[in-house]
Amino acid sequence: MDKKKVAVIMGSDSDWPVVKGACQTLKKYDVPFEAHILSAHRTAEAASAFAKAARDNGFGAIICAAGMAAHLAGAFAANTTLPVIGIPMKGGALDGLDALLATVQMPSGLPVATVALNGAKNAAFLAMQILAVSDEELAAKLAEHREEMKSAIEKKEAALQAEISEI
Amino acid sequence: MDKKKVAVIMGSDSDWPVVKGACQTLKKYDVPFEAHILSAHRTAEAASAFAKAARDNGFGAIICAAGMAAHLAGAFAANTTLPVIGIPMKGGALDGLDALLATVQMPSGLPVATVALNGAKNAAFLAMQILAVSDEELAAKLAEHREEMKSAIEKKEAALQAEISEI
Amino acid sequence: MDKKKVAVIMGSDSDWPVVKGACQTLKKYDVPFEAHILSAHRTAEAASAFAKAARDNGFGAIICAAGMAAHLAGAFAANTTLPVIGIPMKGGALDGLDALLATVQMPSGLPVATVALNGAKNAAFLAMQILAVSDEELAAKLAEHREEMKSAIEKKEAALQAEISEI
Amino acid sequence: MDKKKVAVIMGSDSDWPVVKGACQTLKKYDVPFEAHILSAHRTAEAASAFAKAARDNGFGAIICAAGMAAHLAGAFAANTTLPVIGIPMKGGALDGLDALLATVQMPSGLPVATVALNGAKNAAFLAMQILAVSDEELAAKLAEHREEMKSAIEKKEAALQAEISEI
Amino acid sequence: MDKKKVAVIMGSDSDWPVVKGACQTLKKYDVPFEAHILSAHRTAEAASAFAKAARDNGFGAIICAAGMAAHLAGAFAANTTLPVIGIPMKGGALDGLDALLATVQMPSGLPVATVALNGAKNAAFLAMQILAVSDEELAAKLAEHREEMKSAIEKKEAALQAEISEI
Amino acid sequence: MDKKKVAVIMGSDSDWPVVKGACQTLKKYDVPFEAHILSAHRTAEAASAFAKAARDNGFGAIICAAGMAAHLAGAFAANTTLPVIGIPMKGGALDGLDALLATVQMPSGLPVATVALNGAKNAAFLAMQILAVSDEELAAKLAEHREEMKSAIEKKEAALQAEISEI
Amino acid sequence: MDKKKVAVIMGSDSDWPVVKGACQTLKKYDVPFEAHILSAHRTAEAASAFAKAARDNGFGAIICAAGMAAHLAGAFAANTTLPVIGIPMKGGALDGLDALLATVQMPSGLPVATVALNGAKNAAFLAMQILAVSDEELAAKLAEHREEMKSAIEKKEAALQAEISEI
Amino acid sequence: MDKKKVAVIMGSDSDWPVVKGACQTLKKYDVPFEAHILSAHRTAEAASAFAKAARDNGFGAIICAAGMAAHLAGAFAANTTLPVIGIPMKGGALDGLDALLATVQMPSGLPVATVALNGAKNAAFLAMQILAVSDEELAAKLAEHREEMKSAIEKKEAALQAEISEI
Repeated sequence: MDKKKVAVIMGSDSDWPVVKGACQTLKKYDVPFEAHILSAHRTAEAASAFAKAARDNGFGAIICAAGMAAHLAGAFAANTTLPVIGIPMKGGALDGLDALLATVQMPSGLPVATVALNGAKNAAFLAMQILAVSDEELAAKLAEHREEMKSAIEKKEAALQAEISEI
Repeated sequence: MDKKKVAVIMGSDSDWPVVKGACQTLKKYDVPFEAHILSAHRTAEAASAFAKAARDNGFGAIICAAGMAAHLAGAFAANTTLPVIGIPMKGGALDGLDALLATVQMPSGLPVATVALNGAKNAAFLAMQILAVSDEELAAKLAEHREEMKSAIEKKEAALQAEISEI
Repeated sequence: MDKKKVAVIMGSDSDWPVVKGACQTLKKYDVPFEAHILSAHRTAEAASAFAKAARDNGFGAIICAAGMAAHLAGAFAANTTLPVIGIPMKGGALDGLDALLATVQMPSGLPVATVALNGAKNAAFLAMQILAVSDEELAAKLAEHREEMKSAIEKKEAALQAEISEI
Repeated sequence: MDKKKVAVIMGSDSDWPVVKGACQTLKKYDVPFEAHILSAHRTAEAASAFAKAARDNGFGAIICAAGMAAHLAGAFAANTTLPVIGIPMKGGALDGLDALLATVQMPSGLPVATVALNGAKNAAFLAMQILAVSDEELAAKLAEHREEMKSAIEKKEAALQAEISEI
Repeated sequence: MDKKKVAVIMGSDSDWPVVKGACQTLKKYDVPFEAHILSAHRTAEAASAFAKAARDNGFGAIICAAGMAAHLAGAFAANTTLPVIGIPMKGGALDGLDALLATVQMPSGLPVATVALNGAKNAAFLAMQILAVSDEELAAKLAEHREEMKSAIEKKEAALQAEISEI
Repeated sequence: MDKKKVAVIMGSDSDWPVVKGACQTLKKYDVPFEAHILSAHRTAEAASAFAKAARDNGFGAIICAAGMAAHLAGAFAANTTLPVIGIPMKGGALDGLDALLATVQMPSGLPVATVALNGAKNAAFLAMQILAVSDEELAAKLAEHREEMKSAIEKKEAALQAEISEI
Repeated sequence: MDKKKVAVIMGSDSDWPVVKGACQTLKKYDVPFEAHILSAHRTAEAASAFAKAARDNGFGAIICAAGMAAHLAGAFAANTTLPVIGIPMKGGALDGLDALLATVQMPSGLPVATVALNGAKNAAFLAMQILAVSDEELAAKLAEHREEMKSAIEKKEAALQAEISEI
Repeated sequence: MDKKKVAVIMGSDSDWPVVKGACQTLKKYDVPFEAHILSAHRTAEAASAFAKAARDNGFGAIICAAGMAAHLAGAFAANTTLPVIGIPMKGGALDGLDALLATVQMPSGLPVATVALNGAKNAAFLAMQILAVSDEELAAKLAEHREEMKSAIEKKEAALQAEISEI
């Protein structure tokens, strides 16, 4: 069976500098993905068509990044039963609270799996966790990543001990 | 020429007790209207179809009421160039701040004319103001309403003066 | 019949760099407009006089931009039954939440059609949508603008696909 | 010389149950006052006229109570150089934050002396402090009130000591 | 192969009236689940042990509901690479904003898939969407649920049309 | 009779760049003032002593500027029955919301006349309005200032009309 | 050596229903305490005197509960170097955010150890943790309490398992 | 008896520029301390082990600094009955409100002594106040620090008086 792909959708190309982090993370773990600019409002039909066909087109999870009145993830969630992951983008009002609430406060039956503000890497990790439920190889890679994060902290701890004698 | 109609759309029947105020106001001023329950997520296609056909079907303004991640007005705005008026509903998070931000913070080119939280009557008045731009009879009624509001305040002022001697 | 004009009012010349976007948008679509600096507090009488005479002077919509305790749109709404569009300006407290709430939370009977924080372009589009209710030529231009927005997204999508192979 | 009066203005009779506290406090201290319902939007001219004539009519301070997009105090401040005291009323959005910000965030040159949400009694005390700057008799009464507040706390402290043995 | 289970964890039995909605939803769709009370702070070791063994014990997704400084989902996310779904509970400060931010704002590499405040049903639907990525039968049930939601709206719309003639 | 003085108190010298605006305004209008750094916490006794003696020392109003958990104005209000004007300073949390709430939300009987965030000039104008209740000469100057503000707007309006033809 | 006492101070007797929880907790663990009503503003001198003498009078920690512009804990912190624990009380604005920020955002050098909104029990536990740094017997009791909390969760878990079969 | 140590824990080395202030303060007062990078999520076991052994290892207080969904202090509090002091770090959402609420809103029985946003120095002073409950020498140093803060204000006051004549 072919590996499931991850779709990485952004509402505007201005989101790309942050969203790129999701793509780089997926690439690093050899998870196939596509990235697209699709707007819930400006290209509503193309967005809807993409969402409806996503399962048949081999996608296993859809990441949507949008700011302000962030409707993109919700619009995708309305048109697919695949898990939709929402990245609320900073830059609108109240330090991104507009995008966070517009992404997470979805009505019953239509969840959006919301991650932190500008949390593109975490969106990628969540997509991989979803695929890894039935992909042991990917699950093993994710477990390995946990060890790497632990090692990174331990190295920083060692560096701190060197530095601390001089404060 | 037939009078333009106002569409009053709500995302859920739970919004009706508030939204009814918009319909009653329109009725009082003999402005033709239709009220419908249409969900941006649950009946996305019907909502989109309604919006696309609205101008041809004789509507002049569309009122959309929704709460939480309130995408309804935005979804209509994406599918019509008629003025779309958004009523953010209380009841989600932060006393309705979720619905307010999800309604008002629309991207460039796709405005939603947002009124106060639960502001159903004001949505109706705004719709009538829009129609009255080219309807002098309705404009006269709106001017009359201003006089009525003024008189109501003056009556309350008189009542207060009666009461105040006894505090 | 002469075309209806749009009034673009700002409370302070410091709002001009943002508000200019509304004027440029109106100009681009050949919608006649006037821009003025009028303060709800500092030139209260001139503001009130302008609002009262606006319908007779050929205006069809009034855009008001103000920050902080943004009373300008409300002061206009109190003195005309024309649609008043409020642009809450950032720069006061809480990233513009002061201006947003002071603009949108109007009492019953006196709506202000509020757009996004600093949403000058959207204020212009909303004004044009209002005029286009009875102006088919303008309505056609607005429909065309939707196609342009769609094309712009499609071009950006194409550019992204070129870039994405290199992340 | 006649004693200066305090004006107590409210935007709606629904504010009266709270605003009454200001009147009762002024009455208790024999400070002459008038209470009126005047709306910044619905009776804008009457409000403006009252403010402009207030100094000549013997007022020394003006208390304005309003909720939501609370423009009342600002509208008074624009039309008088008397001190204007604003009481932001709860009941709109975000537990009264709309009224608080709309009252306090006034532009340069036009202050509103803002007190706590629903702080009608404090508005009255502030008005009396203002009058007491040049009224030694009133200043003495205010000093006495401080002693009373102190005594009230001491009585409550005594009651607590009685109760605390039984928890 | 056995069907994957969903774990439904709550930090306190006071969360049960809301969390029960997740269990009922899972039961309705014949998705095997376990529900447990485990506290990130009071039974930290049991929580950690559960999370670490979850994949081996046949779980495919973990739902965690917690309020206030809601650390439960994060504590699970730290100890498993399974998808962890967080339900922020209302009832602490700022209408649940404490729980929402404490759940969603996770550091890089450790996502929590956050749903709406008190969004227990949506947590269940998200868990099912995750399992349905590799379970076509469940995917079909979810698609059917979408049709049911659509029908429900259509019935309510019909009921509204009956009622609306009488306003 | 000697003219009443205004005290301008700041909690920290870091507030001076903003607070200076209050002093410059008072100086411009020939209102005698003193400026001091006094901390509610670090020099609590000196602050308390200053407040207690302020009326006898010829002050008519006290301006207090403080940020974060802004207790300074409240500490003064507790020790004098003179009007105390609070300037909440930006720079702590939530864009100054901490200082605003800590200044304005005073308990019953102990008002602080709160002005806008960083509103040093408005604090000076409010102090002058208070003194002007019994000082006709100062009242006349304040009335003149209103005319100046109006003229300034009118000049800016003229400049805008020149500029607008070129957008 | 005598055991150190805990002072439990509240700004108003209206805080007692919540603050009582702190006293009951201290009593349950046989920690000597005194409870008093002392206001930062109304009995400023008594509060200051109490704080200054607290260490000599055998206190080891001071709990201060206050709402709105909650200055009580800060006023104590200014007058003692004992640890001061602040309980922000709900009931003012924004669901207690006013009290939380006014309590926690203290300037450098003058910390207040802030606990959760209405967190009276936690204030007591924090006071006991502070005393237990040099009191092994109390430390043992606190360790035991942790076991009790664990057991309580385990009992609730058992009860849930009984109930869950019937949903 | 050996002097009790203070542990200064940060969740990430990016917190060090702020957290360093806590270490420098402790060093200045000759209070023994250790600083470590330990993550509630990435090195959960090491963090838990450190907390459990902290009392036996001679610590008297633990300072934890973390941002965003700041679970670090809570994770420590769950594993020790020593006082845990939380520093919420700015940099996540809403100007640090996420970290503040995630740190302070702890459940009953498990307090975190929360200080101001980025309040590293205050965390150190609070830790010293805790140790000084049973350390008279340290208590004397803290009293001396209060005098120094007072002197610093007095010097700044003198400098202001020099400067003020020239505004």
